Parts: sequence; structure tokens; C-alpha cells
Amino acid sequence: MMKNLDIAVLLDFYGDMLTDKQREVIDFYYNEDLSLSEIGEFEGITRQGVRDSIKRGESVLLEMEERLGLAKRFHTVQNALQKIVRCAQDISYYNDEFGYSPKIAEKVNEIIRLAKELDE
Amino acid sequence: MMKNLDIAVLLDFYGDMLTDKQREVIDFYYNEDLSLSEIGEFEGITRQGVRDSIKRGESVLLEMEERLGLAKRFHTVQNALQKIVRCAQDISYYNDEFGYSPKIAEKVNEIIRLAKELDE
Repeated sequence: MMKNLDIAVLLDFYGDMLTDKQREVIDFYYNEDLSLSEIGEFEGITRQGVRDSIKRGESVLLEMEERLGLAKRFHTVQNALQKIVRCAQDISYYNDEFGYSPKIAEKVNEIIRLAKELDE
Repeated sequence: MMKNLDIAVLLDFYGDMLTDKQREVIDFYYNEDLSLSEIGEFEGITRQGVRDSIKRGESVLLEMEERLGLAKRFHTVQNALQKIVRCAQDISYYNDEFGYSPKIAEKVNEIIRLAKELDE
């Protein structure tokens, strides 16, 4: 079983499709980086039980993404937002170079604020 | 049964959680604006059968949104993107007013292009 950052992303999107137990063990495993044994001790189940629960939860998450593709869709948005921030920073640089319009600076800052708020 | 634009949005997000038939009748009803009778004729089922299928499909869509809230999340993104476009248009205006830097104009256009691509 490989640890995979993508599972943490899918958990964020589709976590509410899991049972409480599945969501909890996957969160411990992928977000809190606990070992199977540590999780088993905490949950009062065997190491193998933890592994099974993670596997079942992962299947649900992966199937949801295969059906709906919403994590991929959001990923595209995040990429574009980062490009928007870089463009705005370029404008800020050119604005300084060009003589500095405070009105342009204000709008540049607003774009960066809006884009960063979304990219969280 | 009220026609509700939100259902069309939820269909876009969660349509793949429906049966083919449910997806089809909801698409006809909300996106193509066909009447229940027209859909029934097309599908070879009764008007009441269409209504039931739409109702069941809507329940699935609404429950998915209640669980995952992804349509709401995307709506927030779309709102912010529209604000970003307006800021970029303001910068374009101020840039003209301030003497016109072609470098700023280029980056403004790139921001508008990126934001509009996402807002589709």
C-alpha cells in the first residue's frame, strides 16, 4: 500500500461519501501520517482491519473521482489561478517600471487577493 | 414540480451518479425545456413515469450536493472569477488613461482569457 497524496485530495472532495470509520482511518493515515499499527491501537482494531478499511475507503474515493472528475476539475482551476496571480505580479512590476498608477496597483492587489483566497 | 435552474447545475456536477434514464429525462426537462408529455412520448413511458423518474433523480442530485457541497464550492469560484475579470477590465481602462503600457495590456488580456476559460 503506497501512501499517495492524491488520496488526501480525494478525501477532501468525497470524504462525506465514506463511513465515519473509513474517513477517520484514511485521515489518520494520509493526513496525520500515522502508521497502521498506531491507527489500529487508537481505533481498537487490528492492523489488518485498518488496512482493509483504508482499502475500502480508497476504492469509494477513486470510484467517485472516476465518475465525477471533480478533483481534476478543481485542479485545473487551481492551476489557472496560480497563472492569474503571476500575471498580476507581472502587471505590478510593469506598473512600477512605467511610472506607477495607484489605481492599477489597487486593482492588481484585489486580483491577487481574490485568486489566493480561492487557492486555499 | 417547479423548474429550477439549480437542478441543471447539479446535473452537470453529479449527473454520473444517476441512471442513464434519470439523467436523460432530467436533461430533457431542465436543459432542453421539454414538457413531461413530450419526454414521455420520446422515452415510451407515461407522463407520470417521467415525473417519478425526474423526482428520483433530483433526490439523488440534491443529496449529493448536501453531502459534498461541490456545486456551492464551484459557485464561489465562478463569482470570484467574474470579479477578477472586472478588476482586469478596470486595469485596462486605467492603463489607457495612464498612457498605455503594452506589457500591462498583454498581461491584462491573459488574465481575462484565463478567467473566462474557467468560467464556462
